[in-house]
Amino acid sequence: MASFEWPVRVYYEDTDAAGVVYYANYLKYMERARSEWLRKLGFEQDVLIQTDGIVFAVRSITVDYLKPARFNDALVVYSGLSEIGKVRLTFDQEVCRPAGDQTEVLARGVVEVVSIHAETLRPRPIPKKLREAIDRDR
Amino acid sequence: MASFEWPVRVYYEDTDAAGVVYYANYLKYMERARSEWLRKLGFEQDVLIQTDGIVFAVRSITVDYLKPARFNDALVVYSGLSEIGKVRLTFDQEVCRPAGDQTEVLARGVVEVVSIHAETLRPRPIPKKLREAIDRDR
Amino acid sequence: MASFEWPVRVYYEDTDAAGVVYYANYLKYMERARSEWLRKLGFEQDVLIQTDGIVFAVRSITVDYLKPARFNDALVVYSGLSEIGKVRLTFDQEVCRPAGDQTEVLARGVVEVVSIHAETLRPRPIPKKLREAIDRDR
Amino acid sequence: MASFEWPVRVYYEDTDAAGVVYYANYLKYMERARSEWLRKLGFEQDVLIQTDGIVFAVRSITVDYLKPARFNDALVVYSGLSEIGKVRLTFDQEVCRPAGDQTEVLARGVVEVVSIHAETLRPRPIPKKLREAIDRDR
Repeated sequence: MASFEWPVRVYYEDTDAAGVVYYANYLKYMERARSEWLRKLGFEQDVLIQTDGIVFAVRSITVDYLKPARFNDALVVYSGLSEIGKVRLTFDQEVCRPAGDQTEVLARGVVEVVSIHAETLRPRPIPKKLREAIDRDR
Repeated sequence: MASFEWPVRVYYEDTDAAGVVYYANYLKYMERARSEWLRKLGFEQDVLIQTDGIVFAVRSITVDYLKPARFNDALVVYSGLSEIGKVRLTFDQEVCRPAGDQTEVLARGVVEVVSIHAETLRPRPIPKKLREAIDRDR
Repeated sequence: MASFEWPVRVYYEDTDAAGVVYYANYLKYMERARSEWLRKLGFEQDVLIQTDGIVFAVRSITVDYLKPARFNDALVVYSGLSEIGKVRLTFDQEVCRPAGDQTEVLARGVVEVVSIHAETLRPRPIPKKLREAIDRDR
Repeated sequence: MASFEWPVRVYYEDTDAAGVVYYANYLKYMERARSEWLRKLGFEQDVLIQTDGIVFAVRSITVDYLKPARFNDALVVYSGLSEIGKVRLTFDQEVCRPAGDQTEVLARGVVEVVSIHAETLRPRPIPKKLREAIDRDR
């Protein structure tokens, strides 16, 4: 499966008084990578709302925090689609810190996202054209 | 002029790697105090959107950062309305740390807020009933 | 098992353009409840760093998002300690919205936290006096 | 005076229930641009702490919010150093949205930053080598 990668820089806004990235902020990094993956496939989320009336909502997350990211780190978020259902996309995501030839995995997560109607917030099938773009990308 | 006060606890989410409250987060504290002041006057912002179609948008801020707030501090935000126009409310706000008999002023700000239409985002007069409630509160 | 509860108000800072609380921000709410539970037991985290040299780091989270919290909601976070190891505390947490006689569960999470040394970030046994306070609280 | 520019994408994390970027988050964008400007001059803030023991703290901000930034906008932050003192740097900053040939200014700010000692948080002269790099950049 193709894995998308997206660079993320750690700024002061991301860190906490323990000197590391605050645990909730890894979820921001993961969402940025999912948004940029959609953009790479040709889908802008603000357009998807207008044309298809849908937004993506996170249904569940599991995150293991392995090592702390620190202020000023240049990170890479890896994002791979592991499953696709009628309304659901499941992503395997990693927040990593390149270190010479190697890469340290700092956090690893599984994120389930569902396609919902922007107003009613009820599940809606993933748009056919997005599904096709995902298939082409695999 | 009556000054409203609202307690705020500093959690990890608020701090940064320098060990102090991140500078943008004082604006969150100030907004919480403004929201709670409105609530005390009897106005819920989610209801104001439905009944009057208005939201409040910040037009300008000036903040002086005097001393850093730290993790776990129990702060108090003071919020006083200094001016009221047709669409504009101006607040003098302070984020303070009680210290025995005294209080340290950590940050001091002036915040201009305007009443706007929730959809068009254009200026709208402050609702009459809110204006009256403000007058009664002075 | 005793469950601790902590009220949380939803402000603009917590919401996103979908009109609901941003998924990462539930983790802030959960941390606030864990911090306040520690405080109730008599432990201030800034003091724990100085006296015992320890901080708590989140090792893993699992969160199911069931229903969205919205702007201005008055929520309650429930937090129960389900397991305690030598260095590890496991919490069952729920973010709920009281609705008349009932309560809607909006998000449900399991959070594993470990006691680590503030400087080295390596695991350290949970301080004995905290362990005793937890036992008394059960 | 040379003006540095830095691109910023608006993600869900940045927006609020009014559908626009939350007012405190413009300060994050401005800080990212200041950090990247320092990096361009050859200075990494985590290294500056170790070699010179200094961090930069914001002393005051003034921001005018002119137009709202929205979800998914591709913004540009402009950052120009307008004054440099012994311990103080003053930045003129703008958050802009390119629109065809033109650029909309969404927010305009003046930010005063001081060089302080990382431990004592007391003012410290701006390191000579940074001052020289700034002079070369003008």
